[in-house]
Parts: sequence; C-alpha cells; structure tokens
Amino acid sequence: MITGKNHIGYTRSATGNTTYHTFNPKKNIDNEHKYYEASTQEIKTAISLAHTAFQEYRATPGVQRAAFIHAIANEIEALGDTLFETYMSETGLPEGRAKGECGRTLGQLRMFADLIQKEDWRNPTVSGEHNELKQLSIPLGPVVVFGASNFPLAYSTAGGDTASALAAGCPVIVKSHPMHAGTGELVAGAIVKAARDTGMPEGVFSNLNSSGIEVGVQLVQHPKVKAVGFTGSIRGGRALYDLAGQRKEPIPVFAEMGSINPVIITQNALENRGSDIAQTYADSITLGVGQFCTNPGLILGVASPEMAVFVNDLGAKTASIDSFCMLHPNIHKAYEAMGEEVLAQKEIQLVASYQGVTEPAFAQAKIATVPGAAFLKNTKLHQEVFGPFSLVVQCEDEAQLVAIIQQMEGQLTGTILAEPEDYERLRPIVEALQDRVGRIVFNGVPTGVAVVDAMTHGGPYPASTDSRFTAVGNQAIKRWVRPFSYQGFPQELLPKFLK
Amino acid sequence: MITGKNHIGYTRSATGNTTYHTFNPKKNIDNEHKYYEASTQEIKTAISLAHTAFQEYRATPGVQRAAFIHAIANEIEALGDTLFETYMSETGLPEGRAKGECGRTLGQLRMFADLIQKEDWRNPTVSGEHNELKQLSIPLGPVVVFGASNFPLAYSTAGGDTASALAAGCPVIVKSHPMHAGTGELVAGAIVKAARDTGMPEGVFSNLNSSGIEVGVQLVQHPKVKAVGFTGSIRGGRALYDLAGQRKEPIPVFAEMGSINPVIITQNALENRGSDIAQTYADSITLGVGQFCTNPGLILGVASPEMAVFVNDLGAKTASIDSFCMLHPNIHKAYEAMGEEVLAQKEIQLVASYQGVTEPAFAQAKIATVPGAAFLKNTKLHQEVFGPFSLVVQCEDEAQLVAIIQQMEGQLTGTILAEPEDYERLRPIVEALQDRVGRIVFNGVPTGVAVVDAMTHGGPYPASTDSRFTAVGNQAIKRWVRPFSYQGFPQELLPKFLK
Repeated sequence: MITGKNHIGYTRSATGNTTYHTFNPKKNIDNEHKYYEASTQEIKTAISLAHTAFQEYRATPGVQRAAFIHAIANEIEALGDTLFETYMSETGLPEGRAKGECGRTLGQLRMFADLIQKEDWRNPTVSGEHNELKQLSIPLGPVVVFGASNFPLAYSTAGGDTASALAAGCPVIVKSHPMHAGTGELVAGAIVKAARDTGMPEGVFSNLNSSGIEVGVQLVQHPKVKAVGFTGSIRGGRALYDLAGQRKEPIPVFAEMGSINPVIITQNALENRGSDIAQTYADSITLGVGQFCTNPGLILGVASPEMAVFVNDLGAKTASIDSFCMLHPNIHKAYEAMGEEVLAQKEIQLVASYQGVTEPAFAQAKIATVPGAAFLKNTKLHQEVFGPFSLVVQCEDEAQLVAIIQQMEGQLTGTILAEPEDYERLRPIVEALQDRVGRIVFNGVPTGVAVVDAMTHGGPYPASTDSRFTAVGNQAIKRWVRPFSYQGFPQELLPKFLK
Repeated sequence: MITGKNHIGYTRSATGNTTYHTFNPKKNIDNEHKYYEASTQEIKTAISLAHTAFQEYRATPGVQRAAFIHAIANEIEALGDTLFETYMSETGLPEGRAKGECGRTLGQLRMFADLIQKEDWRNPTVSGEHNELKQLSIPLGPVVVFGASNFPLAYSTAGGDTASALAAGCPVIVKSHPMHAGTGELVAGAIVKAARDTGMPEGVFSNLNSSGIEVGVQLVQHPKVKAVGFTGSIRGGRALYDLAGQRKEPIPVFAEMGSINPVIITQNALENRGSDIAQTYADSITLGVGQFCTNPGLILGVASPEMAVFVNDLGAKTASIDSFCMLHPNIHKAYEAMGEEVLAQKEIQLVASYQGVTEPAFAQAKIATVPGAAFLKNTKLHQEVFGPFSLVVQCEDEAQLVAIIQQMEGQLTGTILAEPEDYERLRPIVEALQDRVGRIVFNGVPTGVAVVDAMTHGGPYPASTDSRFTAVGNQAIKRWVRPFSYQGFPQELLPKFLK
C-alpha cells in the first residue's frame, strides 16, 4: 500500500527527482520504501486544487463534512496492523503507544465530526430591531498542516490540526514529516478514500512528501494558502511564522512549539510524599522517552534537606527506568548535544544518568540540579532539552522561585504540587504562573493532554505563536474561521442555518 | 483643562523637548495649545506602571471594572461643550458629528461595562468526569491603542479598542493621535479621574502625546506590551504589524486599515431605482467628507445605457453636495495626490468634480469611471483614495465583475444592490464577495457600522491584520484575551466565578 508518492488531490504523483527513506531507530537501519519529495509543480497543483475545492467544500452542509470526517476515522481504523507496523518501524515506539495514539486520533476526528453535525459551533448571532444583521463563523480557506515528529498520528496527517481545519470547512494540504512518511502516506490514503467515497471535491486534501524545508517554504508563501498549523521546534515554528508575516497578505500561523513545563513542589509536599512524587515524576519525565511537548523539564522548589533527598531520589528512580530509543538518530543527537550544553553551565550538577548499556539512538535519561540564583542569571539553562531530561532548581526562598517563574518564557503548562496548608501562600505562585502558561495542573503531571472542551493546549510565546487559541479540544476549530456578517439579506440568499 | 502634558498613570508629565500644535482645518490656523511629545522615560514609566497595574487589575472583579468603565462614560459626558469645541477645532467636523460620535463612544463604553457585569463573556467551560478541568478567558496584559485620525472619540482615547481592552482586564496605553491631541487629553483626563474615583490601580491607563512615529515604535517593541490595537492606514498598520512580528516575543496586532468597500449594482436595480441609488450613494460617498473606513470607493456594474445614465447622475449629484473641509491639510493633500494618481491611469474618465469655490483643506468630491478590463489590469486603480471619491467600474459582463471581485484585496464590506428577480444569479457574486470581505450589505450603504453583537468590522487583509476578530461590537473583547485551563484545582485557589 505504500508507494512513496505524494497525494495531489485524488492522484498519486512522483514527478520530483529527490528521494529519501525513513529510518528505523530501534533496528538502526533505513526502512525499505523510497519517498519522492514533492516538486514545485506538485505543490502548485495541490494548492490550486485546494483553492478550487474550497469554493464547494465551504458550502458543503455540516452533516456531509461530518460524514467525510467519520469516514476518515473508519478508513484509518481499517488500516489495522499495517499502520501500526509502519508506525513502529518509523518511530521505534512500542505497539501500545501506536495503538493508543491511533485511538486518540480517531477520537479527535469523531469529536470534530460530531461538533459540526449542528451549526452552533459557528456561533450564529443576530442583531438589530428586525434581525437585519446576522453573523456566523466561516472558514478561512486552504490550510497547510505540518506533521509533528513526535506524534505521527495525533498531530500529523489526520491529527488535530487537519481534523479541526476540515471540520471548519478548510481544505488541508499536509507537509508530511520526513521521519514517518510511510505512516503519513497510509493515513493520507485513508483520507483520500474517505473523500472520494463521501463525494468531497478533489483537492480537499493533499499530502506532500518533503525531507527538507523547501516544500514548506513554498506552501507558506503561496498567496492561495490562508493559514498554517505547526507542531514542533521553536526554530521551525518561528521560521514559518516569520515567512507568513512577511507575505504581502500575512496569514495566521498557529505553531505549538517548545516548552519546559515548570513544576513547583512545596516543602510540605516534599515532606509528606517526596518519595511518591519522585516516582511519579521519574515516570512522567521518561514517558515516551521524554518526547512530549508537555514533558516536565524543570522542577522548582526551595532548598532544604528534604529537597536534597528528593533530588537524589528522583535521580535514582529516573536512572533506573529502562532506556529506550528516541524517534530518530537526529533527535537523539540533539538530545545529547543540548544536554551537554546545559550540563556545561556554571554551578549545574548532574545528579544521575541512566547507566545501563544503550544502543544507538537510545536515550540516557538524566536529572540535574542547580541553585536558583545560577538559574536566574543564565538563560541557557531555560532551554528545552527535548527528551528524558529534567533540571531541579533549588531556590533560596519563595521570592526567588516567583522571580524565576516571572522571568521564564511562555509555557504550555505549569504544575503545582502542594498540600492544603500551602494554599494561602501559593497565590503569588499561581499568579506568576498564570502569566506564563496556558494550563496549570494541580497535584498531577503535565504529560497527558485530554481532548476535551475545557483544554487549553497553547500558551504565551514561545509555547505557541498565538496564545488566543488552543490546539487541542473542540475549540481548536476557532483557529481556522473568521466572523462574517450578512446585513439586510434576503432569506433566499442566506446560508440555510441562518434563515 | 488642556495642559499639553502626557498622562503617565495618575501624573501629568512633560519632560520631553519636542512640542507640537493641533490644527484647525476650518479656520486654517494652528490651535492655541502646545503638546509635549512623550519622552523615552515617560514611555518606560507608563509601561512599567501598566505592567504592575495588570497584576491587580486582571484580578479585579468584573463588577468593579464595569463601575470604572461606566464612570469613564460619565466623566466624558460631563466634559460637555468643552469636549465638543475642542473636537471641532481639531477636526473641522460639525457639532452634530461631534455629538453623534460622542454618543457612540459612550454607548460602546457602557456596552462593554454591561458585558462584564457577569462573567459569561469569559466563556467558562468545565470538562472531565469530576469537572477537574476548568477553562476561561483571561486578559493578555498591557495593550497599546493607537488613536485614529478619523474618529477622535469612537476609535481613539476611549474608543472601542480601549473600552474592550479595559473590559477584558488589560491596562491600556494610548498613543494619542497628533491631529486631535486636545480631544485626547480631555478624554484621557476623564479616564484617569474615573480610575482614581473607582479605586483602580495607577497605570491602568496612560495617554502619550506623539507627533511622529518614534513613540509608537518604542511602545510596540517593549517586552511588557502584550497586544496592539490600531485604526488607520495600511502603511501605518502594516509597519506596526511587522514590528510586533519581529519582536523576540511576537504579539498580536489588530489593525483595522484601508478598504474601498465595493458596491455591486445589478441592471434591474439600475432600471428600477437608478436615480434613488445615485442620491443615496452621493450622500454616502460624501458623508463625513468621505473619511470613513467603510466609504464606498468602488461601484461595480455591467455596462449598459442605464449604467451610463447612472454614472452621470451620480456624478452630478455628488458634485452638487456642499464642499467641506477635511480633517487636516495633510489628509487633504493625500486625497488630492491619490486622486490625481488614479485619474492619470489609462482609460479612466473623470465624470464630475465639485465645482464651487473651495477653501484650503476643503475637498472636491469626485466621481470617475473606467471599463472593467482596464480596472482588472491595473491594480493602481484598486487603491483607496481616502475622501469623497468613488470609481464606477463598467464591466463587460457578470463574469468580468466576478473576476474583479475575486482579484480584489480584502475589504471590510461589500454591498449588493439588487432586485428579487436577481437573487438566483447573484450566487457567484455573493460567493466571491464572501471570500474578500467581512460584511455583506444588501440594498443598503456600507457607511454606518452598528455597535451590536452580530457586527463584523474587520476582514481579510488588508481590511484588518487578523480577520478572525471584529473591532466593533461585544465580540471585540476577544482580541485581548486567551483561554486558560485550571486542572485539578482546589476550590480555594480558583477564581470566584469558576467555583
């Protein structure tokens, strides 16, 4: 079923000359299939088809778009083991994760499909003495979605961005992530089959292979592209944001980027359950080999004997968890390099590192610690080390802890581990965190982002490029629509659901 | 009551060396007062105060912020004739307009104050089996508002941007428009008095004088500023948008900019009521000396004998309306220059121009016409001529008319003048317009923007820099907030309205 070709509307196409392979990090070998990088002509055709499809697709009733999106979920489900095997061969991730992420992906698709069965999501509003002004949300136009390295299913080809944009009435062009081009092609095939079967216009979806940056650049710069969704690094997201902002007609870019997800632990919490917290966080730090955007990369507390015990305990527990391979040797290399850079800073101390035998691309989980004053002075320590790494900052006092939070860049999440007797004095910490994050977790872990209405997955820059929207949950659809008003319109010309 | 000083929090300050005067375009003389351009230190102090005030102001209950905003409206109302006289002396606009715009301004303030009496506007949402995830909208932080030349009250110091940002819980720093610095100072004084009287933190509002671009640049580049509101030219809005996008932490800019507001007239409408339309549009084109962002600068129809009659009729009626002074000699100069540039293009024909005696800064209203093919080829004809100018494009057929709409830049509004027998064939026009505008008006005029829930004042770039929001109506508050989630939070630490 994998051909290595691009999906340009309903056609499989491979007119370009550049090819590449995906890599099996667990076996440390290239995978079999060869992928054809999309050519400039293929990019243009995909955009042209999307532009034309938009005219029809945006006027397609919600129930029909819902049927399309439900069909996508069913087609992906029908891929079964072929999908899971390809997924595992391209990521090194275990079967349980493949199946879990697939379930999340299907759930997201079906959630957006259900949302658009009725038109309430468009926020229809009427005003005026004779209801002469009627407003509703309409789709922006063709959306480009960049696949994420760390979520080949849930934030890639048919992930949250694609599902919400298709639900909104926007055609989608996916720039497939090169690390999992095969998974991407399988899912793209499922989307195309669903589109054909449910009578959607050709061009409502295309999937472009690309191993470099050129395809993405051409997509974002094209005048007929009207919005961009991205999940990945700060460098990548910022580059796309800048490109989109420099267009003659700038377009919105929703990029969900890096985060170190600070966790604050109070002295009381350490005294009452320090050992439990150490185990919970050792698990959270190493979950998915630390390759989650909500990975807890920074732990903050006030220095104390109990904190010293906790740091060592967390180190021992983290280092004792089995090593596992990262998604790609490049990600492993970056993890090693970033870790080395951070550990080379003044006053930082490596507490523990996985000591077992590792294979190529397998990550050594690491815990380090640093005094609060040193952290405050040195922004190199504030960088994300993408992988199973966490830095424990031991502050002089709570005032310094608050100062650190205030100085931090924007984050997806902040977590507070505290006891009821702490609540009163927590207010300055809650307030400082509120300024810097999109979601505060109380006595939990930041990893695990529920796909529900009340979820905020986004936050002040650089957690995301537009904190006014969430990338997860029903409200993610708002990224791809704009309000539109009909004034004094005859019934005959109004959209059906506004009559 | 006018001192020429800046309002830096609760202090009147004038530490800078640069001064300027406002101008009375009707009398063609400088006004009396001297205004002190804000110094770099004053800018920094205003931002620092706003940043500090934000911590307290965002946590102020809605009813208290509402009381503050109601007090602003009352204080502005209490300025009475002083305000109107200053307004008229700085704009040349008549008393009726001053009073009308003041009424609109008070209405907007009171609307936002009423909106935040309850917390529904925050869209509070709960999810999870045990409601463990609670989401609501929280304010972004200090907002910079740029006063608009053409609305000294309704879109300036205490205009829609300021009212919605204060309502959202964001402190506001106004960059006063140099053409009406006196009006701005009076209104700023009213806001500061209201803030003091209702116990708001110092720094919740500041007003900075500025005759050049430097104050605005410093404001937009400052890391503690978190969003920008602007109403004005494409050049000015784009410059701010670019500055904000180039920051280390980019921030949202909502700029409402130029628009030529296309009006489509069908043959049936021309035949049935061409003369009435000519009168209605002559009035709309010259309303406020054409200085509205929704001014109808482009009229589209299919060439016919009736169209030829209409064009001459519109010209005659427009040219017969009394001339009036524009807001400022610079605006008048730009009107003349832009008009000349457009009229120098190939195949364009001047139909009529006001022929009476005009004084300096008084505008000659003009109607011109051009064939559809020439318009399609020449984007110089698509530019806004800010003032009482409208270009009638006579198309070969409806296909050409649709092609023109499709090729146009984004617009605030589009208008259709049609008869019931036209409805079926209007669909391609409605669809093309929907892609290019934020509001379609049916059998009306685009001028007159009702401040109601269902209003969309915004549109695809360059009508605004973010079409996903409106600048007018209750929903304008959404520009200044972001979603925020509390996960597993103890009741004690939740905001009151989420408990």
